[in-house]
Amino acid sequence: MIVVQKYGGSSVATTEKIAAIAKRVAARAKDAQVVVVVSAMGDTTDELISMAKALCDMPDDREMDKLLATGEQVSSALLAMALQEMGAPACSLTGGQAGIITEHVQAKARILKIDGKRLKDELNKGNVVVVAGFQGITENASWADITTLGRGGSDTTAVALAAALKADCCEIYTDVDGVFTADPRIVPNAVKLDTISYEEMLEMAGQGARVMHSRAVELGQIYNVEIVVANSAKDVPGTLIKKEDPEMEVRNPVRGIAHDTDVTRFTVVAVPDQPGMAAKIFHAPAGANVNVDVIVQNVSADGCADVSFTVADADFEKAKRAIDPVVTELRARELLIDQNVAKVSIVGSGMRSNPGYADTMFGALAAEGINILSITTSEIRITCLIERDKVKQAVRALHKAFELEKV
Amino acid sequence: MIVVQKYGGSSVATTEKIAAIAKRVAARAKDAQVVVVVSAMGDTTDELISMAKALCDMPDDREMDKLLATGEQVSSALLAMALQEMGAPACSLTGGQAGIITEHVQAKARILKIDGKRLKDELNKGNVVVVAGFQGITENASWADITTLGRGGSDTTAVALAAALKADCCEIYTDVDGVFTADPRIVPNAVKLDTISYEEMLEMAGQGARVMHSRAVELGQIYNVEIVVANSAKDVPGTLIKKEDPEMEVRNPVRGIAHDTDVTRFTVVAVPDQPGMAAKIFHAPAGANVNVDVIVQNVSADGCADVSFTVADADFEKAKRAIDPVVTELRARELLIDQNVAKVSIVGSGMRSNPGYADTMFGALAAEGINILSITTSEIRITCLIERDKVKQAVRALHKAFELEKV
Repeated sequence: MIVVQKYGGSSVATTEKIAAIAKRVAARAKDAQVVVVVSAMGDTTDELISMAKALCDMPDDREMDKLLATGEQVSSALLAMALQEMGAPACSLTGGQAGIITEHVQAKARILKIDGKRLKDELNKGNVVVVAGFQGITENASWADITTLGRGGSDTTAVALAAALKADCCEIYTDVDGVFTADPRIVPNAVKLDTISYEEMLEMAGQGARVMHSRAVELGQIYNVEIVVANSAKDVPGTLIKKEDPEMEVRNPVRGIAHDTDVTRFTVVAVPDQPGMAAKIFHAPAGANVNVDVIVQNVSADGCADVSFTVADADFEKAKRAIDPVVTELRARELLIDQNVAKVSIVGSGMRSNPGYADTMFGALAAEGINILSITTSEIRITCLIERDKVKQAVRALHKAFELEKV
Repeated sequence: MIVVQKYGGSSVATTEKIAAIAKRVAARAKDAQVVVVVSAMGDTTDELISMAKALCDMPDDREMDKLLATGEQVSSALLAMALQEMGAPACSLTGGQAGIITEHVQAKARILKIDGKRLKDELNKGNVVVVAGFQGITENASWADITTLGRGGSDTTAVALAAALKADCCEIYTDVDGVFTADPRIVPNAVKLDTISYEEMLEMAGQGARVMHSRAVELGQIYNVEIVVANSAKDVPGTLIKKEDPEMEVRNPVRGIAHDTDVTRFTVVAVPDQPGMAAKIFHAPAGANVNVDVIVQNVSADGCADVSFTVADADFEKAKRAIDPVVTELRARELLIDQNVAKVSIVGSGMRSNPGYADTMFGALAAEGINILSITTSEIRITCLIERDKVKQAVRALHKAFELEKV
């Protein structure tokens, strides 16, 4: 049996915490071959970034990747030492040593293939193999470049290794107990889900649930890797992310409420309505590498259209720089920007075949006097844009309306 | 013209210092292809070691090498960024990326060969290449192991790269101005030497001069790499280490006074004098990987011998553990250990063909009332073991006796 475990930066923030993790890993290694993926210790990555920023405004991506990759090299070596100290044979590997070959793109490389020979050799020697997360190498050569995988990188490393090794399970350890029906800090009686499908997890993650990055979930879906998300500090079962199964149909069709306050709404007001107008508007943020969401277009009686969409707050400046010239070019009346908005979503694969969820959702929000600014849907999700200061009230009302405390 | 420069840990201890070094390097890069070798920033290595020691008493050498190698990876990436920021094209390479292939021995690997293709490619692209010192890789493969070179590792990296690239010069930047006729903290009118031969530098380094590690000097001698030792914080010429040349003969035959207080003397008293006795005594420290020096053996009238030798203070415990059983086995009367000793040496290749130096040396020490405990010589060196608290007085007296202030 092969198990891949991943521990995040807060789980390995100090040597004491590393020793505690080593104990967990050593216990697991008694009845399985274990590969452990680690992030950098605590604030290491931020400290490295601040040293780089002290030297230059825009550090070169290649040098930055080499700099940041040291963080995981340190934590992986220390965890291997801690395992050896408690009698568990162990060795650490960098991303390159583990055979994680990526495209030659710095700072956000995608994995091309995993050349897992060394990894398998070390497992077969009886070693726990501790792999530095978040990083790869461009070729199987000592002179090749070190790359990093970008956001969600260590989770992605873990799932990719699990796929390559045909592991029985991929366990992602973090500082929460699993995936909940809603954020437990907002809804005290939110319930931890035992299982969730890949699609549902992707919708939850895409709409603000911070438990796991969608990139790693997608990879798990493609390679059918079952992923457990659990708390590294506790000994309780987490949430299993897996293929949708028939049993799921008899459960509450709505699985959870996601919310996201990291949202800015742009509205291009009174654009002359003509073919290609939307393409021009959305070409701009795409060119600036900004994701847009909750797109709504209304045509008014005067032959003009209002187009609105949301971007992440973090992308606000980039998006504005990209969209401003387009507003002028299209002779739109004005550009409205609203940062006082938030998204609230209901997610559940059972919604696909059952009508009536939109009705319940809108009714519950109306009963609270919450105004809906825009609506978007996927097959298994309904998202409403609302005023930001109403978001907690909305999440609580929806959790109650869909009886999620009974899941 | 190709130049290899090396900057030690104190020269790159902070981002401010790295920016200052970048300025020096960028200036040099205007009229030469420059390879820079860096050590880890300031106390980084010590901090990494203390994290490892917090987790285990005897950290595994392989994991330790992976851990420590991150220190130079960080400083090299930061220096490359600083160079780019001031408009000098630059890229950093790890030891592995620079093609430094070593034997598969952890913690003290020797360099087997340098596969300098990537290094040359980057130079030919117009880049200053910043190489992480002190480290190598066991094979040209991404899965190969990271090794470190042990003591004097970054100096060794620099000289080895200079040899492989057939560089015109290898410049070792440190926190002293060069090689002096004696330690300037003891002899205020000590003089910086413009040149010194490899042999002389090796004798000086072997007898306590801390300017440069003898391993790198040896490598320079073998590959005939001219090495400049200079101060990274000043803009003054340093000392050139090179082949002995005829001009050297007309200079003061004594080039410098070295001293070393890091010395413990062991004396095995009254060993029955028989063939193989010395072999048995010195086999013990050799087996424990302890270097011995200043060996003296006296046979007394009763057919017994006293054998004494010195080891570095740091090796005291190891040496004692190794020698104790031999003392019993050989039925020696006792083992005396004296830590109140020091070595003082005169070094100069001119001594080879000129007699009379021992006489002047012993006379100068006698005039100061300093007792000589033992004497050893090489062709170009005479070393006296004296009481430790007389060492400064001895160095000053010898510096004056050989008129070194006039060099």
